[in-house]
Amino acid sequence: MSNAELAIALLQACQQRGIMLATAESCTGGLIIAALTDIAGSSAVVDRGFITYSNEAKMEMLGVSAATLDAHGAVSRETVLEMAAGALTHSQASLSLAVTGIAGPSGGSADKPVGLVWFGIALAGQPVVAERQLFGQKGREFIRHETVRHALQLGLRALGQDRAG
Amino acid sequence: MSNAELAIALLQACQQRGIMLATAESCTGGLIIAALTDIAGSSAVVDRGFITYSNEAKMEMLGVSAATLDAHGAVSRETVLEMAAGALTHSQASLSLAVTGIAGPSGGSADKPVGLVWFGIALAGQPVVAERQLFGQKGREFIRHETVRHALQLGLRALGQDRAG
Repeated sequence: MSNAELAIALLQACQQRGIMLATAESCTGGLIIAALTDIAGSSAVVDRGFITYSNEAKMEMLGVSAATLDAHGAVSRETVLEMAAGALTHSQASLSLAVTGIAGPSGGSADKPVGLVWFGIALAGQPVVAERQLFGQKGREFIRHETVRHALQLGLRALGQDRAG
Repeated sequence: MSNAELAIALLQACQQRGIMLATAESCTGGLIIAALTDIAGSSAVVDRGFITYSNEAKMEMLGVSAATLDAHGAVSRETVLEMAAGALTHSQASLSLAVTGIAGPSGGSADKPVGLVWFGIALAGQPVVAERQLFGQKGREFIRHETVRHALQLGLRALGQDRAG
């Protein structure tokens, strides 16, 4: 499925459940919510997006704690869990997709290489789920595109698990 | 200039002045900040984006008043002025680009047709500027793309005027 097809499927899944959706994006910088709002009629489902590029934005918009950022860094499991949870707390949405990663070309390290992305998915009433992906050093555009795709897939999976449960 | 070239020019203009940038987007749904953050090194300038698709998001994230939305609607001069001003108040940025419009295909009216977009540009210490554009009924993708282009151009113009003044 293309990213557009994934976006349509996720919007439909949300609409069927009568829930709204929010994104909390760092390395994708708005691409996830742009993919969703590219679909006509998306306003029935898309509530808002928090594009938290700076650490200040992560703290002020989503309530990510300074202690978490200090101890684990902006690209970490702990930060993405707080981003996803904060996106629900600070919106009308019941499903949030959060991403934080290193799109490069600079900013990587041995510990956290370019292409590392943490995903967080929060569905109201369930524990927040985090997942780590390494997309490799295939360029900023590739990493951002694959991050959008994977976030949409994780959103669909979260709703599928919800349905199964 | 392409949208990518405009984004690079705007980032450079902000960096030269030592200011950060924020967006407040409705109909573009994150495309403006996605275009900016597509540029490597943009994190030095891009603070955050408020993607306020719903009216609740406009009120809660940017402080747009319910009275303004009731009296003038989400796509109006009054709303975009409050969006642009609110983006400065609620961020570390000194320049904000705000847009609200009707990308269609539905949602238009005789009074506010598909393709109508209001732009608001706030530069710290100066009055907020609003501008109205009609992009015609050439499709959602065209309207959104032209809206991104025009917002970036207005941001550059605001900094140019600032320099001239």
